[in-house]
Amino acid sequence: MDRDRARALLEAVREGRVTPESALESLARAPFVETAEGRVDLHRALRQGLPEVIYGAAKTAPQIVEAMRTLAAHGQAALATRVPPEVAVHVREALPEVEYLEDARLLCLGPAAPVRTGLGSVLVVCAGTADLPVAREAVAVARRFGNKVELLADVGVAGLHRLLASLELLRSARVVITVAGMEGALPSVVAGLVAVPVIAVPTSVGYGASFGGVAALLAMLNSCAPNVAVVNIDNGFGAAALATLINRA
Amino acid sequence: MDRDRARALLEAVREGRVTPESALESLARAPFVETAEGRVDLHRALRQGLPEVIYGAAKTAPQIVEAMRTLAAHGQAALATRVPPEVAVHVREALPEVEYLEDARLLCLGPAAPVRTGLGSVLVVCAGTADLPVAREAVAVARRFGNKVELLADVGVAGLHRLLASLELLRSARVVITVAGMEGALPSVVAGLVAVPVIAVPTSVGYGASFGGVAALLAMLNSCAPNVAVVNIDNGFGAAALATLINRA
Amino acid sequence: MDRDRARALLEAVREGRVTPESALESLARAPFVETAEGRVDLHRALRQGLPEVIYGAAKTAPQIVEAMRTLAAHGQAALATRVPPEVAVHVREALPEVEYLEDARLLCLGPAAPVRTGLGSVLVVCAGTADLPVAREAVAVARRFGNKVELLADVGVAGLHRLLASLELLRSARVVITVAGMEGALPSVVAGLVAVPVIAVPTSVGYGASFGGVAALLAMLNSCAPNVAVVNIDNGFGAAALATLINRA
Amino acid sequence: MDRDRARALLEAVREGRVTPESALESLARAPFVETAEGRVDLHRALRQGLPEVIYGAAKTAPQIVEAMRTLAAHGQAALATRVPPEVAVHVREALPEVEYLEDARLLCLGPAAPVRTGLGSVLVVCAGTADLPVAREAVAVARRFGNKVELLADVGVAGLHRLLASLELLRSARVVITVAGMEGALPSVVAGLVAVPVIAVPTSVGYGASFGGVAALLAMLNSCAPNVAVVNIDNGFGAAALATLINRA
Amino acid sequence: MDRDRARALLEAVREGRVTPESALESLARAPFVETAEGRVDLHRALRQGLPEVIYGAAKTAPQIVEAMRTLAAHGQAALATRVPPEVAVHVREALPEVEYLEDARLLCLGPAAPVRTGLGSVLVVCAGTADLPVAREAVAVARRFGNKVELLADVGVAGLHRLLASLELLRSARVVITVAGMEGALPSVVAGLVAVPVIAVPTSVGYGASFGGVAALLAMLNSCAPNVAVVNIDNGFGAAALATLINRA
Amino acid sequence: MDRDRARALLEAVREGRVTPESALESLARAPFVETAEGRVDLHRALRQGLPEVIYGAAKTAPQIVEAMRTLAAHGQAALATRVPPEVAVHVREALPEVEYLEDARLLCLGPAAPVRTGLGSVLVVCAGTADLPVAREAVAVARRFGNKVELLADVGVAGLHRLLASLELLRSARVVITVAGMEGALPSVVAGLVAVPVIAVPTSVGYGASFGGVAALLAMLNSCAPNVAVVNIDNGFGAAALATLINRA
Amino acid sequence: MDRDRARALLEAVREGRVTPESALESLARAPFVETAEGRVDLHRALRQGLPEVIYGAAKTAPQIVEAMRTLAAHGQAALATRVPPEVAVHVREALPEVEYLEDARLLCLGPAAPVRTGLGSVLVVCAGTADLPVAREAVAVARRFGNKVELLADVGVAGLHRLLASLELLRSARVVITVAGMEGALPSVVAGLVAVPVIAVPTSVGYGASFGGVAALLAMLNSCAPNVAVVNIDNGFGAAALATLINRA
Amino acid sequence: MDRDRARALLEAVREGRVTPESALESLARAPFVETAEGRVDLHRALRQGLPEVIYGAAKTAPQIVEAMRTLAAHGQAALATRVPPEVAVHVREALPEVEYLEDARLLCLGPAAPVRTGLGSVLVVCAGTADLPVAREAVAVARRFGNKVELLADVGVAGLHRLLASLELLRSARVVITVAGMEGALPSVVAGLVAVPVIAVPTSVGYGASFGGVAALLAMLNSCAPNVAVVNIDNGFGAAALATLINRA
Repeated sequence: MDRDRARALLEAVREGRVTPESALESLARAPFVETAEGRVDLHRALRQGLPEVIYGAAKTAPQIVEAMRTLAAHGQAALATRVPPEVAVHVREALPEVEYLEDARLLCLGPAAPVRTGLGSVLVVCAGTADLPVAREAVAVARRFGNKVELLADVGVAGLHRLLASLELLRSARVVITVAGMEGALPSVVAGLVAVPVIAVPTSVGYGASFGGVAALLAMLNSCAPNVAVVNIDNGFGAAALATLINRA
Repeated sequence: MDRDRARALLEAVREGRVTPESALESLARAPFVETAEGRVDLHRALRQGLPEVIYGAAKTAPQIVEAMRTLAAHGQAALATRVPPEVAVHVREALPEVEYLEDARLLCLGPAAPVRTGLGSVLVVCAGTADLPVAREAVAVARRFGNKVELLADVGVAGLHRLLASLELLRSARVVITVAGMEGALPSVVAGLVAVPVIAVPTSVGYGASFGGVAALLAMLNSCAPNVAVVNIDNGFGAAALATLINRA
Repeated sequence: MDRDRARALLEAVREGRVTPESALESLARAPFVETAEGRVDLHRALRQGLPEVIYGAAKTAPQIVEAMRTLAAHGQAALATRVPPEVAVHVREALPEVEYLEDARLLCLGPAAPVRTGLGSVLVVCAGTADLPVAREAVAVARRFGNKVELLADVGVAGLHRLLASLELLRSARVVITVAGMEGALPSVVAGLVAVPVIAVPTSVGYGASFGGVAALLAMLNSCAPNVAVVNIDNGFGAAALATLINRA
Repeated sequence: MDRDRARALLEAVREGRVTPESALESLARAPFVETAEGRVDLHRALRQGLPEVIYGAAKTAPQIVEAMRTLAAHGQAALATRVPPEVAVHVREALPEVEYLEDARLLCLGPAAPVRTGLGSVLVVCAGTADLPVAREAVAVARRFGNKVELLADVGVAGLHRLLASLELLRSARVVITVAGMEGALPSVVAGLVAVPVIAVPTSVGYGASFGGVAALLAMLNSCAPNVAVVNIDNGFGAAALATLINRA
Repeated sequence: MDRDRARALLEAVREGRVTPESALESLARAPFVETAEGRVDLHRALRQGLPEVIYGAAKTAPQIVEAMRTLAAHGQAALATRVPPEVAVHVREALPEVEYLEDARLLCLGPAAPVRTGLGSVLVVCAGTADLPVAREAVAVARRFGNKVELLADVGVAGLHRLLASLELLRSARVVITVAGMEGALPSVVAGLVAVPVIAVPTSVGYGASFGGVAALLAMLNSCAPNVAVVNIDNGFGAAALATLINRA
Repeated sequence: MDRDRARALLEAVREGRVTPESALESLARAPFVETAEGRVDLHRALRQGLPEVIYGAAKTAPQIVEAMRTLAAHGQAALATRVPPEVAVHVREALPEVEYLEDARLLCLGPAAPVRTGLGSVLVVCAGTADLPVAREAVAVARRFGNKVELLADVGVAGLHRLLASLELLRSARVVITVAGMEGALPSVVAGLVAVPVIAVPTSVGYGASFGGVAALLAMLNSCAPNVAVVNIDNGFGAAALATLINRA
Repeated sequence: MDRDRARALLEAVREGRVTPESALESLARAPFVETAEGRVDLHRALRQGLPEVIYGAAKTAPQIVEAMRTLAAHGQAALATRVPPEVAVHVREALPEVEYLEDARLLCLGPAAPVRTGLGSVLVVCAGTADLPVAREAVAVARRFGNKVELLADVGVAGLHRLLASLELLRSARVVITVAGMEGALPSVVAGLVAVPVIAVPTSVGYGASFGGVAALLAMLNSCAPNVAVVNIDNGFGAAALATLINRA
Repeated sequence: MDRDRARALLEAVREGRVTPESALESLARAPFVETAEGRVDLHRALRQGLPEVIYGAAKTAPQIVEAMRTLAAHGQAALATRVPPEVAVHVREALPEVEYLEDARLLCLGPAAPVRTGLGSVLVVCAGTADLPVAREAVAVARRFGNKVELLADVGVAGLHRLLASLELLRSARVVITVAGMEGALPSVVAGLVAVPVIAVPTSVGYGASFGGVAALLAMLNSCAPNVAVVNIDNGFGAAALATLINRA
């Protein structure tokens, strides 16, 4: 509840239109819906300008269905991330209007946000073909959140010419999301070439001493470029949400 | 070298005003100055709109002096981060015009950038008094880079009322930098209250299982808020540089 | 063997009613039953006021059945924790009177303890829907151990209003169990709001740099609130057992 | 601000005794004092029944002095933990009434809480002589917080007879704090002998593969006894604060 | 090749019975058999008094069969450790005389060594029922290597009376193998009660912060008892081999 | 694009044979082919003298097929590493001319490089039978890259005579690749016996505290022999590629 | 208290020579002396045949002096390990009869044990000169505990000939202690050459990825030789104590 | 002892010129000198073509002096690495002819090896000024070992133009040593630009999540370039030794 609404409420109390007890209830009443399995947040769109997103990794199909239905019933779009195909199938049986992007493991309910002209475009750059699922999660989420998005794939640093060939594209973006596993060097190189914020997404691509993405994560946290910040391993969604807020005018 | 300058150079070659050999030299010639100790980058300001910043942690005073002098000789402002007081003393003996912010361990040469109206203000929020040195590095750097900056200190999550009392301030910023050690919970709580990008800076404040800031770092990487990205432990400088780029119109 | 029984035994020796050899045997004889697979402890109820609990994770169905039968034969209730459904099926074939709570992976033999009025109620708070299985283990165990228990679910710190809306419930408990994965910030926030002991249970919910619950565990160990103590990752059972002892008058 | 005070405030608004603007201010006004270096929490005593405690590890003497003075000016007792002797000297120069327990690195301002009869006594048990500083921090804090406290030292598990000789003392406590470094086995053994909550404090005593207390910490988190919870390495203060809350009737 | 055989060979060269070339070959010829898949060591029995043992974890059934056949063809007994049941089935189809102890995942070819009276008996002590597979590997191997072996199971430290009830058995052994997961406290307690070498075997029993046996491993490495040495996690075989050498007169 | 080609291009601009715009395009045009799934590098053979190698671990069969087809269409040989059998089957259905070495998980398209006499031979030494898959990957790749290769298997350091028996073979190589899991001691011992570069490949063979090859990796990085360098765990391919470049005259 | 003394005590009770109360006291009375700083164990010599050893790392000089005096007053020899020179000086001022071996950081009070012929000799082997302090601790302790001890130094595995030159010495020992840092390969190689128990002591010698001895520790835990057990990093004392018990007839 | 000398010795035995006993001694006699502190290896030059190098980090000045004197007495050059200035001073007092390179912490005795034309030159590339000490160790050692060496400094990947400006130099080397801390991305980028072996040296330059060089180490082990191998953190010496062997014709 923001300050303006609080002030209006208190005015109503003074004028006798609202009882103190009732005002107290309003002050305490949170903008969520209590369901059998949780408290679905209805006001994130209001608070953050982003729709509520359901973390689908450890949820059952019925839990996802219930949360999506609640959001839909309140007129909100919704996403569910990290949903395995076998769960998605069951969700779509219950909610056939839901779209599933298997590559990005993303369930989408309701229309995408209209493209805002905002500050510019979001560019998603990924190091190798194996990083594509994470990159595609970022692309899909950023698009649904109303950004103009482009994807530049397979430009790992051991073949610099592939990256340098797209310098113009790199420099045209308002914010760059870099997605890389293994040695995670891509963000440092990209950040040295552009003058905008770079969000680094380490991926779990690799083996042995990559430790499920830790090597890439550490490299990104230690980037000698000053314009890099990092999100969790494989977190394409978070990178896209953050990029959306950066891209807003 | 950007595409326009390359095109102009090639035109000059075609018109015979520049020989191919000389053009080749120009294409290869990098925008740096070779000194006894390194290659000082003169074009970061041009490339990124940020002045060159010297990583002072493992450098001797003469190395810092030489790099700063080179930058000054080319008309550039310069910063040096993580400079211990005993090194700073020697740098200032050689370059008395340099300013030293001991709390932030920051050496500053030349004038700060003029404040840009940009998109809004940068808010630096820190959890405890012990986090202040890192927070102050962020504040000082962001100010020198031309931002309007505010500091909200000592608002750890175990006393929520201190944070909630400043809700209005929190919501007025274009970008928030959160600085916290120990359990590193502050960014998650702050990010849920604002609708802008939140940069999380873990600090090495703590003992035992804080592992020099690792506990806070991991907490921040795992934030359930979608609008958080993380920089290295104690990296107030990086957070401020990134915030500057986010804050630009 | 407690001090009083030892004294009585020694008196019997002095009076010649018991031979020294036999007394020696009694002193050495432990309150357990030797079975084919182990030594079932019969005196934990006597020693700790808690029934014996079988760690079911690495046991076969026959091992669990034997232990439960032995306890039942001595008139004791029993629990088995972390029992996978496919093992539980076989246990219940052998012991149909056993109840299985699949969500909590808990096998229960015999009646629950009667609810003691004790010092108050146990409140289990969990951050997200994905943490519910661990929270439900805590709820189920605490109930069987005779506590009045309430559950507050889906109140993660990135949507503080959901938590603050239940402040009254939070402050009514004698002991609070907080269950959270990812950044594990919930216990710090809750502990700042209540004046009772808070037991923190990290969960393995999360991915990437959550490292199976390590991020949450470290956050909880580093809580800046002074009234937090931590149990093992996903250890809902341990939290409930400890809460039971705290709750006793 | 609790619910009752909020209700009274709203009644005053309705009756016209307080303007909405002023009520809004009151709702927002947090119970802390803004100083040059932080926000000193004045209401922890009210919220938690524990005085405010200053984390002294990374603070300068002037920072500690200011915080203590602020608390004293509001009639509150105060502690500062983890204060090195060279800092303590300067604090006591400014505030001669402050007491310093060097062994426990604890600064104390104001009178200790009166001993409450509460539920019983707090027993602090430590494994070796090297663990004594941490144990003494726990003892000193628990005493100042109004508990009856006893200390049982040097009863490591490799010489069980030393521990078993004090079985009666062990079983007389309402809550036991166990302090151990190296293999950290003491809490498991103690917890098997008592029927009360056991708080385990790992210490950094050890070398090599003790990794500064990690070995002990992990052992304690994995205790097979159900009545053990763990605090941070060397955190004698936290254990005492928690024990205080457990010990309350 | 030992020194006596080398001397005899050199004598033969001097006397002209062996040519230098041939002696050179003998000196270089190693006591192994080259097979398609490896070099089977035939002289370990001679060098160490222990039969060759095949590490079965990452080998195919044909690889194990070939190694066992080669050893059998040279009159040697053989063991294969860590053999999963599905591999063991195929080995036994090819070599029906091989015995398989499923619980210990051990394949045995040829007769066990005759029991040597040696210095005494080997006692295997394990903390919980879940540790039994590792304990049984130790028991089975130690028996095949000719030791008198006893097993004391389910005597975890949280129920000390179970362990203390068998003090006489503990003190009768020449060497004790302790097997424990979770907090790994058993070796420290046992080692304080006996006057013989204690070999500690951490097991992977546990969850969460047990990290697959790391917690127990670290606890054992940090034992404050001076008579403990540690082998790899779940390495019942190694403990038994070492105990055999300790037990020899 | 190398310097000579750049010079020729610029000459053509000067002579008017090429327009600046077109030259600019050429300078920017990278030597790769854009496909639906990535940018296939065609010039690695030119740049490094090694054919392009596809990292097959996280790719689908269609992705591998497309990359291989593209390379074949440009007359290049190709390898794909770490391809599981079930993926390989599908690749070979689409590209029957591809060869699959199941043991090494290697897909090979096109002829092997002709054996160069170069500087000498590559020797692959492995510690145990379980390390053979990694060793065979190294052997297969080194052969396809045109080296004379030999394999010395099952010469672990706990049976030194097996290794010393092949001293002549060891000393005949130009470069040695050592492959070992568990304690990873083989490279140190081998490197002390030869006067050539030794590439160490840790393997994930082992259990418990081998941590998936970390123990071997650390041992190799800490080798007290000065002629050892290390590649990633299980990275037989990388060792072979590097050995090829070392072996070149 | 051993079984025989318990039986005698109980006989005395039966015969009326001892009252039950008094017997109870005796049973409970532990064989230790309560001092200001701890409980000094007087019966370890009786229980384990080893004198009490004081862990000197975290103790003050007065604490060590008090413990040594107490032991001396009861006619026992004593050692204190890991005592820094500056502490040792103060101990020797108070107890001039104490001997200090600076290299081994060992304080010794009272005569060494007489050399027992026992089973044979203890051989301490160390890899490099830098490992000598730990090796010398092992040598000094083993000698004081009554063993015949030999030292073989500087025989790292990268120069095998140095080790093989002493094969006869290696094979003459009853038990071998191997001391090595860096890659920690020495125990595996030595254990393959002898037929006796090998105790491995990792040292903190090394830098970078040796992680203070962790690399050597892991290598030793993963030894492919079956006759190796490991003690803590730099724990020469523990190795010697264990070797003493192994060496006993 | 190599095969030819062994054959000659055996011939001498056959011909009666050498007794078997004496031959046995010769076979066993290792090419080292036994000193008070260790076994100085005299034959490394013979075995590996590299002079003996003394690991100076944990040695006293007298130990280094003795080893160097022994080597000099046998006509060998010698290096000592990682020698702190305060130790170097004492060594040079005893051996004034020794040269000390403080930046590289290297003590050098005797003449450098003559420059071999070999296969080409060794290029040492380092990312930042702070990496220079390690780079200079590599340069100094490679020069003393007879290589033509060049140094390219301060070419971190966040300012690619600095690196690309030296492409010609990069491509002229026979082997490249890359030295980098922080994110450790330099080897991947360099290796993609050259066709020769690249040795990667991680440095401990960095802070926070660089973990003393671990971040750089992991990045280098996970390089997606196939021509990279890694040595220990800060191990400039090892890289130079290996480069020397690679560079030999």
